[in-house]
Amino acid sequence: MRIGILGTGVVGKTLGSKLVKLGHEVRMGSRKAGSDKAKAWVRDAGIGASEGSFADAAGHGEMIFNCTAGMASLDALRAAGTKNLQGKILIDVSNPLDFSKGMPPSLSVCNTDSLGEQIQKTFPESKVVKTLNTVTAALMVEPSLIPGSHTMFISGNDGHSKTAVTRLLKEEFGWREVIDLGDLSAARAQEMYLPLWLRLYMKLQTANVNVQVVHG
Amino acid sequence: MRIGILGTGVVGKTLGSKLVKLGHEVRMGSRKAGSDKAKAWVRDAGIGASEGSFADAAGHGEMIFNCTAGMASLDALRAAGTKNLQGKILIDVSNPLDFSKGMPPSLSVCNTDSLGEQIQKTFPESKVVKTLNTVTAALMVEPSLIPGSHTMFISGNDGHSKTAVTRLLKEEFGWREVIDLGDLSAARAQEMYLPLWLRLYMKLQTANVNVQVVHG
Repeated sequence: MRIGILGTGVVGKTLGSKLVKLGHEVRMGSRKAGSDKAKAWVRDAGIGASEGSFADAAGHGEMIFNCTAGMASLDALRAAGTKNLQGKILIDVSNPLDFSKGMPPSLSVCNTDSLGEQIQKTFPESKVVKTLNTVTAALMVEPSLIPGSHTMFISGNDGHSKTAVTRLLKEEFGWREVIDLGDLSAARAQEMYLPLWLRLYMKLQTANVNVQVVHG
Repeated sequence: MRIGILGTGVVGKTLGSKLVKLGHEVRMGSRKAGSDKAKAWVRDAGIGASEGSFADAAGHGEMIFNCTAGMASLDALRAAGTKNLQGKILIDVSNPLDFSKGMPPSLSVCNTDSLGEQIQKTFPESKVVKTLNTVTAALMVEPSLIPGSHTMFISGNDGHSKTAVTRLLKEEFGWREVIDLGDLSAARAQEMYLPLWLRLYMKLQTANVNVQVVHG
C-alpha cells in the first residue's frame, strides 16, 4: 500500500519505518521537501521510503497518518491540501498537548470537542480514524513490548475505514485487542486519557505503559 | 472507625453499607436530617448505621467520603461545614459530570483544574484524597466482581492520608493494585478518565468495567 506520513518526529519515523519493513511504500512529509530529518529517515528506512512536502506525502498515500504535534496538526493538514486528503483514510495519531503552560502539559482542546473532530470538520471528505494516540511510538508498532494482552482504542465516523485500520493494527502491528469506541466524538475520551498516561509515565518511569480493559 | 458519608445516592449507600458491614460506625448525611432515602438506608444497613444532615455526618466522621454529585459537591461540603471537615481525611469519590448538555455528559471542570483540587482549595485544612471515582459503586467495595487484578488510582497532597486510604482500599475493600499518581493535581487525570469510562460502559454494556495498568 502507498502510505503518507505527516511529521518527522519520533512517531512519524517509528510508524514509517515499521510500515516500510512491512513492505509498504511510505512517503514522509514535512513543511518543506528535503528536510534533514526526513532525508536521514529515508536513508535509515531503506527501500520503499521516500520524503517530500506535506502535500507530496499526502498525495502519495492511499492512507495518511497524521503524526504531527497536535497543536500544529491543522496547519500541517492544510498544507497537505484538502484535495490530497480527499476520500482517504486519515489516521489521527496526534494529541493536542499544550506545553506552553509548563509540565505536565494540558490539552489545547478537550471535553466538548477534540482534535480528531476538528480535523474531521476541517476535512469533511476525509475519513478520520482516531487511534494509537494512547501509547508511545515504539508500542504503537510493537505492542509485545508489554507482555500479555492490552488494549488499543479506535473511533471514527466511517465503519469501513475503522475495519481497515483495525486490520492494520491487528495483522500488521500485532495488536490483540482493539476496542471500537464508536463515532469520532469518542476521540474526546481517547485524548482526555492523556493526562492519566502522563501521570503513569512519571510514576512508573517508563513510556512503555498502557492499560488493559477488563470487565465482569 | 467513625465515618461520615455525604450523599444518599447509589455511591453513598454502597460505600456506607460496606463500611457498616466491616464494623465501622457510619453516618450518612443529606441536605436535611431525616430524609426518606437516608432513613431507608439506615434500616437496610443495620447496626452501626445512622443518618443526619451533611453537618451531622461530617461532625461524626473521623474520615469523610464525598459521594455527592460532582456539580453539587462544593455546596454540600459547605453545608457540612469547614470546622466539621477540618484536619480530617476527605475522600473525594465524585466526578464533575455535567448532564445539562445531553449524553454522554461533559465535565464541569477539567484540564487545568479538577473538582478534587477545588475541594482542597475551598477546605485547605482538610486532607483531600481522590480515589474510587474511576469505577462504578459496586466495584468500589467489591473489586472481585471483575476477575483478576485491576487498578485503582489515588492522589492527594498528604502522604499519611494516602497511606491510610490505600490501607482501607486494600485491606478492607480488597483492591490488589493501588497506584499513587502523586499530588492532588493528578485528580485532573483521574477525572478526565471518565469520558473513556463512559464510552467503555456504552460499548461493553456493563458498568463493571475497569482498566489494569500494564507496562514493559
